Amino acid sequence: MRVGIVGLGLIGGSLGLALRRLGESVEVRGVAHHPNGVVAAQQRGAVDRASTDLRDLADCDLVVVATPINQIRPVFEGLAGVVRRATIVTDVASVKRPVLEWARCLPEPSQFLGGHPVAGKERSGLSESDATLFRGETWIFTPVDGQELTPFDEWFRLVRGIGARPKILSAEAHDRQMAFLSHLAFTISTAYAQTVRPVADSELGGPGYRGMVRLAEGDASLYEDIAATNRGPLVEAIDSFADVLRDYRERIDRGDRVGDLFRRGVHATR
Amino acid sequence: MRVGIVGLGLIGGSLGLALRRLGESVEVRGVAHHPNGVVAAQQRGAVDRASTDLRDLADCDLVVVATPINQIRPVFEGLAGVVRRATIVTDVASVKRPVLEWARCLPEPSQFLGGHPVAGKERSGLSESDATLFRGETWIFTPVDGQELTPFDEWFRLVRGIGARPKILSAEAHDRQMAFLSHLAFTISTAYAQTVRPVADSELGGPGYRGMVRLAEGDASLYEDIAATNRGPLVEAIDSFADVLRDYRERIDRGDRVGDLFRRGVHATR
Repeated sequence: MRVGIVGLGLIGGSLGLALRRLGESVEVRGVAHHPNGVVAAQQRGAVDRASTDLRDLADCDLVVVATPINQIRPVFEGLAGVVRRATIVTDVASVKRPVLEWARCLPEPSQFLGGHPVAGKERSGLSESDATLFRGETWIFTPVDGQELTPFDEWFRLVRGIGARPKILSAEAHDRQMAFLSHLAFTISTAYAQTVRPVADSELGGPGYRGMVRLAEGDASLYEDIAATNRGPLVEAIDSFADVLRDYRERIDRGDRVGDLFRRGVHATR
Repeated sequence: MRVGIVGLGLIGGSLGLALRRLGESVEVRGVAHHPNGVVAAQQRGAVDRASTDLRDLADCDLVVVATPINQIRPVFEGLAGVVRRATIVTDVASVKRPVLEWARCLPEPSQFLGGHPVAGKERSGLSESDATLFRGETWIFTPVDGQELTPFDEWFRLVRGIGARPKILSAEAHDRQMAFLSHLAFTISTAYAQTVRPVADSELGGPGYRGMVRLAEGDASLYEDIAATNRGPLVEAIDSFADVLRDYRERIDRGDRVGDLFRRGVHATR
C-alpha cells in the first residue's frame, strides 16, 4: 500500500515513522511545505521518499493531510487535480465540521473520511515525532450520515497496527467533545499561565504548577486556528467552566466547607 | 542528630526515607496517628523507630510536623508539654500564616520556623512516599520579622542534603505566591474535571486532557483545608484568572484572531 502524507510535523512525521515500522508492505511518500522539511523527514526516516510537490502523490492509495488547519483547504484543492477518484483521503485535524465542508472539492468526496488522532505533545514539529505517539490513544473518525466505510477498512487496519483505537463519531459530536476535552483545556492552561506571570515567581512552582502550564507551551498558531474554527462549542465550554468556577469562588469566599466540591472533581476523573 | 517526624504520609514518609539515606548521623523517630501507620512506616524503612505517642519525641533535636493542616494545632499543643526549649520545630504545610499563629503555644516560639517543601504527587499517603520527592524542588521557609535563623542551620543543611533548595520568604508572600502557583491550580483542575464530566467522554481525552485533570485526583480534604486557611489570597487568584479567561472568551466569541493571547500564555511559562 502506498500512503502519502502531506505535512511532516509532529503528527505527519510520527505517522510516517509508525507506518514504516509496520514493514515493507507500506510505502510512505511525504510532501513537505519547504525543501528543508523534505531533507529532515528523509534523515529522520519518517518517509521512503519526499518532495514539496503534491503531484508526487498521484499514485498513492491513501493520502493523509497532516498540515496546520489553515492549510487543509488549499491542500484539498491541490489534491483535487492530482489524485484518482479511487484514492482515499483523510486528515488529522482537531476540528472536523469545517474539514468535511472543505473536502467537498475532492474528486470523490465519498472517498474522504475525516479523522483525528487524539495524541500529541506540548512541543510540535518533526523533531518531536515519535513512532509510538499513537499507541493506546483513540483515533476518531467522523463519517457523514450514511457514508459507506468499506473503502477505509485497510486504513483502520493500519491505524490499529500502529497502536491506536479507531472510534466513530459524528463531526458535530466530535467537535463538542473536543471543545471540552482539549480546546477548553489549552485555553484554561494558557489563561492560567498568563494570570500567574505578573504575580508569582514560577521558580516557586512545584510539579502541580508545571503540569497545569504544560499545554500553554503548545503551538499558539494551532490553538488560534482551533479556537477560530470551533468557536461555538469552545465558547459554550468556557461558559460552563466559568459557571462551575464561580460556584467554587463563592463558596470558598463565604467560608463554606468545600470538601464536597473537591471530592466531586476527583470522581469526575474516574 | 535525632529528627522526629509527626505524620507519616506522603511528605512525612518521603522525608524519613530521604533523611535515612543520608547516613547514620541522622536518626529518624516517627509518630503516626494510628498503630497501622507505625507498622507501615517501619516496613517501608521511613523511620528508625515509630510509635503513636508524641512523648517519644522528647529527646529529639528537631521535630517536623507533617500532619494534615487541621491537625497541626493540636500537635503543637501536644508537643508543648513534651519538647525541650532548645528543640527546633518546623512544619511542611502549604499555608503559613495560620501555622505561625498556632506555633505561639510552643515552649520557645523563636525555635519554630515555618516551612513548605514545594513537592508532591497527585496521590497521597505513605505508600506513595519516595526518597527523591524533594530533589530539585524549592523548600520555602517563612521566618517572622527579625527571627534569628542560626538555630536552623543544621536543618537547612539536611534539606540541601536531600536535594531541595531552601528559600526564605515572608509568610504573607508565601501564601499569596502559593494561592496562584498551587491553590489556584488545583481549584481550576478540579472545576475543569467537574465541568467536563456531564458533557464529554473522558475516554476520548488525550494526554492534554489527562494532564489537566491530574491535580483533581489529589486529596480533597487537603484542598478543603488549604482553601479554608488561605481563603483571601485564593479568592483573589480565582478572580484574576476569571478576568483573564473572560477576555479570552469575549475575543474568541467575537471571532478575533487570538494568536497573540495564546502566545502570551507561552511566554508566561518561560
